Amino acid sequence: MAGLRRIAVIGSTGSIGRQTLEIIRAFPDCFKVTALAAGRNTVLLEEQAREFKPRYLFVQNGSGRPEHGEFISLEEMVSLPEVDIVLMAPAGLAGLKPTWLAAGAGKTIALANKESLVMAGSLIKQKLASSGGRILPVDSEHSAIWQCLKGEGQAVESITLTASGGPFLGYTPSRLAGVTPAQALKHPSWLMGPKVTIDSATLLNKGLEVIEAHHLFDIGYDKIRVLVHPSSLVHSMVEFVDGSIKAHLSYPDMRLPIQYALSYPERWANPSLPRIDWAGLGNLTFEEPDVRSFPCLELAVNAGRQGGTYPAALCGAGEAAVELFLNGEISFPRIAGLIEQVLDEHNSCRNPDLDTIEKAAITARNRAITISRE
Amino acid sequence: MAGLRRIAVIGSTGSIGRQTLEIIRAFPDCFKVTALAAGRNTVLLEEQAREFKPRYLFVQNGSGRPEHGEFISLEEMVSLPEVDIVLMAPAGLAGLKPTWLAAGAGKTIALANKESLVMAGSLIKQKLASSGGRILPVDSEHSAIWQCLKGEGQAVESITLTASGGPFLGYTPSRLAGVTPAQALKHPSWLMGPKVTIDSATLLNKGLEVIEAHHLFDIGYDKIRVLVHPSSLVHSMVEFVDGSIKAHLSYPDMRLPIQYALSYPERWANPSLPRIDWAGLGNLTFEEPDVRSFPCLELAVNAGRQGGTYPAALCGAGEAAVELFLNGEISFPRIAGLIEQVLDEHNSCRNPDLDTIEKAAITARNRAITISRE
Repeated sequence: MAGLRRIAVIGSTGSIGRQTLEIIRAFPDCFKVTALAAGRNTVLLEEQAREFKPRYLFVQNGSGRPEHGEFISLEEMVSLPEVDIVLMAPAGLAGLKPTWLAAGAGKTIALANKESLVMAGSLIKQKLASSGGRILPVDSEHSAIWQCLKGEGQAVESITLTASGGPFLGYTPSRLAGVTPAQALKHPSWLMGPKVTIDSATLLNKGLEVIEAHHLFDIGYDKIRVLVHPSSLVHSMVEFVDGSIKAHLSYPDMRLPIQYALSYPERWANPSLPRIDWAGLGNLTFEEPDVRSFPCLELAVNAGRQGGTYPAALCGAGEAAVELFLNGEISFPRIAGLIEQVLDEHNSCRNPDLDTIEKAAITARNRAITISRE
Repeated sequence: MAGLRRIAVIGSTGSIGRQTLEIIRAFPDCFKVTALAAGRNTVLLEEQAREFKPRYLFVQNGSGRPEHGEFISLEEMVSLPEVDIVLMAPAGLAGLKPTWLAAGAGKTIALANKESLVMAGSLIKQKLASSGGRILPVDSEHSAIWQCLKGEGQAVESITLTASGGPFLGYTPSRLAGVTPAQALKHPSWLMGPKVTIDSATLLNKGLEVIEAHHLFDIGYDKIRVLVHPSSLVHSMVEFVDGSIKAHLSYPDMRLPIQYALSYPERWANPSLPRIDWAGLGNLTFEEPDVRSFPCLELAVNAGRQGGTYPAALCGAGEAAVELFLNGEISFPRIAGLIEQVLDEHNSCRNPDLDTIEKAAITARNRAITISRE
């Protein structure tokens, strides 16, 4: 893609959306912000609209009369013919519908939302195949794998997703029983939104990433490994059939994978992105994940392997469980317990359509809340 | 390159040559060994000739009447029209002439000899540009960089060569005074010929690799770093302008970079190549080289920066110094001292031709021997 990139930022007031606009601000001659969509932060959306002067705006829950831009529906926004790239960054379940619509419209989707691919990876890929659209990963791990695969053929033996291990790495299950939302929100290496930060603390996030990688790179679950790497410098690795491994390293900063998705296939020098300090690189450590303290990882991978609507139930239950934990209604270990119970009860269906998937997620979400209050 | 690869192995009885034949043995349908050249190990050469039935043979110092193959000159061998790839693995200065001739003949050169590029990088590259030949690196570090650059454009910020640090990592200069050839020949991670093994112990090898990388990848000396990485799993890294770093990892086994150069652009599954044990990956450590104990690294890089015939003098003096050390005539720290003295005295010439380069190397070699006996 050469010349001006016309972009719609879905979820512009969230963590990824704001960092996307930072990248766009750093390369004013490379981008035209055509559309901005937000959930409810109307104040920030209007501020962004004043700066970037998009033609179109969307807000999910809110109102206002912005100086710049015209309100349109989200469905219209992700299908605009004058948009080249849709940066898709709504949190959680809310990412499914716009990703689906953008895929149907044949867009290039810079995808920061995990749940859409986790819940409906096969459907979305079918849609992209027929529409001519494509997904460029924004998640740091998937961006890392994508970069390691650049220029390589199909000779992939396995991929390894790294996990920071989160703030509670090394905690025993009993010690985890007492951790607070404030502690869980303090991620040691990544600056992210609250949902992803809690999912990182439980390793649910890594499980979702395994499912996402399975869909993005057409690779079987048996060929996807997770290794805990606390310094978050190695973002992921690809092993090839000859035994060669390529790893992607960088200072942990989401602006880099965001920029790479937007500059692809080019790489742009951006002095505001921090560099790895080589003298301070020191030790890179890798260890197997602790499945006893962090059962969400296996719960998620198993849901992915089972397929059907299990991944949707996983996402629905996970979203509810995180909210309940953040509201102080359940303990940290109960997050996994709730998800497990919902998945155990779940009645999956083979080859679900999008409606079925959405319903499964919402049913699971509601069921998790009900169980928590029983 | 598709179909049968017709190959000439120059230096077939040395460490790299024998490992090359192991790879060829593992993929009998992919290769035809057209020619084998050895220095003096006629017995092994004849054994190899019986197995691989090459049409042509060459031996530098020796004679015999092999059952298979016809003796031709080395000049003829590296220019044979029926050869697709010349695997170039003579040790030391002896690599210069055949590499030069193969470059002139427009061959694909799988290059395991460092000294040829170190001494005459600019000349060889000019030759390749006019002949249509090319060099595919076989050295593990350069293979790693080459692989990391695959599919990438020119957006390189820097490259980092890793060094195992050799058997004397952490030794003080005074402790190094007492080390023996037998100790120096015990490399902690790589199985290599004696010259390269001693050069690894002094870090001269890493300095030669910096110069080689400078020529192979057209990258300035200021953008080439060396980091000591004792486990020898990360073979090198490339940093791009956006701050992304790609690293190549594998179990340290020269057969992998040899195979990659021969299978390029493909990757082939080879069950006999060992894999990294992920559970045992543990810590990867990186540290700055100790320039006080291992002055050869800086001596070499400075010779590379100075250009002219300095790199040739470096290689000549280095080759003599290693032989003197292995013969018990000089101490380990004296290797660097001898090289330094020869380089200090050296009268370089700008834009030397190949004869001048060869003469500079031989003069430096002889001068090092003379100094050592003064």
